[in-house]
Amino acid sequence: MTSTVVSSASKEVVIGFDRPFVMIGERINPTGRRLLAQEMRNNDFSRVQSDAVAQVEAGAHMLDVNAGIPLADEPALLAKAVKVVQEVTDVPLSIDSSVIEALEAAVAVYEGKPLINSVTGEEEVMERVLPLVAKYNAAVVAISNDETGISEDPDVRFAVARRIVERAADHGIKTADVVVDPLVMPIGAMNTAGQQVLRLVRRLREELKVNTTCGASNVSFGIPNRHVVTGTFLAMAIGAGMTSAIMNPLHPEAKNAVLASDVLTGNDRDCAAWIAAHRNPAAARTRTARRRRQNRRNSRQSSTA
Amino acid sequence: MTSTVVSSASKEVVIGFDRPFVMIGERINPTGRRLLAQEMRNNDFSRVQSDAVAQVEAGAHMLDVNAGIPLADEPALLAKAVKVVQEVTDVPLSIDSSVIEALEAAVAVYEGKPLINSVTGEEEVMERVLPLVAKYNAAVVAISNDETGISEDPDVRFAVARRIVERAADHGIKTADVVVDPLVMPIGAMNTAGQQVLRLVRRLREELKVNTTCGASNVSFGIPNRHVVTGTFLAMAIGAGMTSAIMNPLHPEAKNAVLASDVLTGNDRDCAAWIAAHRNPAAARTRTARRRRQNRRNSRQSSTA
Repeated sequence: MTSTVVSSASKEVVIGFDRPFVMIGERINPTGRRLLAQEMRNNDFSRVQSDAVAQVEAGAHMLDVNAGIPLADEPALLAKAVKVVQEVTDVPLSIDSSVIEALEAAVAVYEGKPLINSVTGEEEVMERVLPLVAKYNAAVVAISNDETGISEDPDVRFAVARRIVERAADHGIKTADVVVDPLVMPIGAMNTAGQQVLRLVRRLREELKVNTTCGASNVSFGIPNRHVVTGTFLAMAIGAGMTSAIMNPLHPEAKNAVLASDVLTGNDRDCAAWIAAHRNPAAARTRTARRRRQNRRNSRQSSTA
Repeated sequence: MTSTVVSSASKEVVIGFDRPFVMIGERINPTGRRLLAQEMRNNDFSRVQSDAVAQVEAGAHMLDVNAGIPLADEPALLAKAVKVVQEVTDVPLSIDSSVIEALEAAVAVYEGKPLINSVTGEEEVMERVLPLVAKYNAAVVAISNDETGISEDPDVRFAVARRIVERAADHGIKTADVVVDPLVMPIGAMNTAGQQVLRLVRRLREELKVNTTCGASNVSFGIPNRHVVTGTFLAMAIGAGMTSAIMNPLHPEAKNAVLASDVLTGNDRDCAAWIAAHRNPAAARTRTARRRRQNRRNSRQSSTA
């Protein structure tokens, strides 16, 4: 039973087989969010903080933090984003960049054991990212593509994932600290994208015995009523053995699919979390409002501190 | 690629691997519907007909017809129900009873190739139902329990299913005409019910190479916001290889999970059905209203004929 343990300064989260699915909030990402990109570039991180709080309130167990803004100083922005998110939430973070200097800068200011997102199967990337993972005793997302690109053959992607896991071991990184992303393509562009991922997730779990994650929203890009498709995909992926996803917990279709999947996999014992979330919506709203007020107070205190 | 072909007098439906999932409407069933039971007992089948039309309009590819009313003349009621449903819809039917005389009476008045629901692995039931299936060249739902009851061990249920398939072959019934029901228990009562079914569906498809079905709504019995749980279950089951279910297409959570699953398995080519269902809801409503008016006219004509 593979367990990937990540942590913030005060909180541990375990991604694992036979555990509730781990929702990693996707919102702190300027890609396609022009206003957020502009604010971050102007050193205004208020929306980064409010998005962090909102996602955690909606049930995110972790948050992905990305600062990929063209022509900006990504290392400085990512480090700042990680810092300000840590001020307002206590969930562990996934530090997300394809720029290795940005990963280095952000991991350096992170308190706890982060998930570094990501390493690919490209030789140069492995040899730069894996030492960083080992140095900070972090966990890492392994994306199953290499110099030849993203194969449409799930067996080739499996082989790439295995190569990353083996190379990680050479750097002293445990298999349990490698979380494989099978790469989810938009189903509207590639009819076989869903089946590929389900097959791959099953093999990654049964043969390579690794935890898995993915950018779930990507699957429904460009098609109508897309959040239902994303939620349905999450249910299928969890049924096939996926253990976490970078997703939007503010979309009820996606979030409820995850919570219901936990019920159906038996990982929400006695349906306790499901019942708590649904039996008494009025009480839940009151709790949320109370928490929101508390968070606002905390955030005012931290900004005046 | 296993294909189970069923038909009405004028229409064929194929349950099969790598095809869109087949939704079998569950509503025509007096169990737990006191008013419907009372009406049927009084020989009033108007609600049976309107439920048939509503489910087909909502997207049901087939309809399950059940007349299990305590102390009533079930053979006569089931035959009558099958007859009146055939008057208002052209989808193939699943003829549903545990009373073999009722199956006999209803199959005798059915036009086309029905799905007989069901046979179990009990010796006496097999030796009475399978000859009926063979005589009418029907397809049959095989429920994976036997004299010892419903095993909690999916491997035992698999063995029961295999025994029924083998016995069916002794009666000249093709494997493709046996649709196995792995038996879905309420997840609220049995924490492992979901995992059991997923494991069993996968084995039934990969090893026994049979189509599968189930009473999907049962999984969410007794828990809040149950239709989301049913829809999520359907997505997981389809991901594991299930090819049909007896379900309620009038619940959007269940129906949309099925349609989105077809997109994700790649069996809704180019997302055509999904896009047609969601791109222009106003146009869809107009089409539905027009069809409803037409159905009302047809139904008036058939009742005056």
